[in-house]
Amino acid sequence: MVNFMSMKFRVVVDEREKPSGVPDLLKELGLQVEYRMLDVGDYIVSWECAVERKGERDFLKSLYSGRLFDQAHRLGETYDRPVLVVEGKLPLFVREMAKPRAFWGALATLAFEYSLSVFFTTDAGQTADLIYILTKRGGLVRPRGPFNPEKA
Amino acid sequence: MVNFMSMKFRVVVDEREKPSGVPDLLKELGLQVEYRMLDVGDYIVSWECAVERKGERDFLKSLYSGRLFDQAHRLGETYDRPVLVVEGKLPLFVREMAKPRAFWGALATLAFEYSLSVFFTTDAGQTADLIYILTKRGGLVRPRGPFNPEKA
Repeated sequence: MVNFMSMKFRVVVDEREKPSGVPDLLKELGLQVEYRMLDVGDYIVSWECAVERKGERDFLKSLYSGRLFDQAHRLGETYDRPVLVVEGKLPLFVREMAKPRAFWGALATLAFEYSLSVFFTTDAGQTADLIYILTKRGGLVRPRGPFNPEKA
Repeated sequence: MVNFMSMKFRVVVDEREKPSGVPDLLKELGLQVEYRMLDVGDYIVSWECAVERKGERDFLKSLYSGRLFDQAHRLGETYDRPVLVVEGKLPLFVREMAKPRAFWGALATLAFEYSLSVFFTTDAGQTADLIYILTKRGGLVRPRGPFNPEKA
């Protein structure tokens, strides 16, 4: 008989996310962190949900280069619930942008054309809180369950 | 023959939104603003998309009372693309909340269980920019077209 109480919530994390500090915070919150080299997304929190995390500079750079939409497309193709987390204080600087409406247009495109849920966090602590919540909601897996992140 | 160039983008606005300043800004941006008393949503930007706008205080109040989820449910039932705009600087004050993870949990619930797209803006100007973009993308209607906001 399976003892559900002994199960740990697991999150699969791209190795390149280590320096962000988020994976260590997830461990402190009690999640089991497993590192992989992921092709798509940075954090796999369940079968259906993966998170791409971007700092505000990287977000803007990939937005202007168009790479953001390539990534969004791949994330949405691979997972039913693709999530983008933008970390930093970007929302405060929208008015200083040369074309603020392009920013809102990009967010609308991500939401409606790529079905991405976009969250803004101010720092690694908030990002970890959010990923923790997403993992607890969708990431309960049996210790030897069929969850196979390598396939992702 | 229909002259598409002469069409104006139209947004239907709940009358109680007047004091927010957003409808006037939408007019300045060139949209045709039509006031109604709306049961669901504050701005109807197209057949499929309506926007509920909330100040940060109202957002938190309705979150704690549970009213937010009632509204989200009705918005999602009536429109294929329900949008929530939270206006203010709430994202900066998450760390001061007693239960920040409840905040992220609520956002995750809105996104995944109610299929809401949630946007954070800092002021009426940004809200207007966002609604303008949403209207331009989905709200092109013929002057005597079948678009019937009364039915919404």
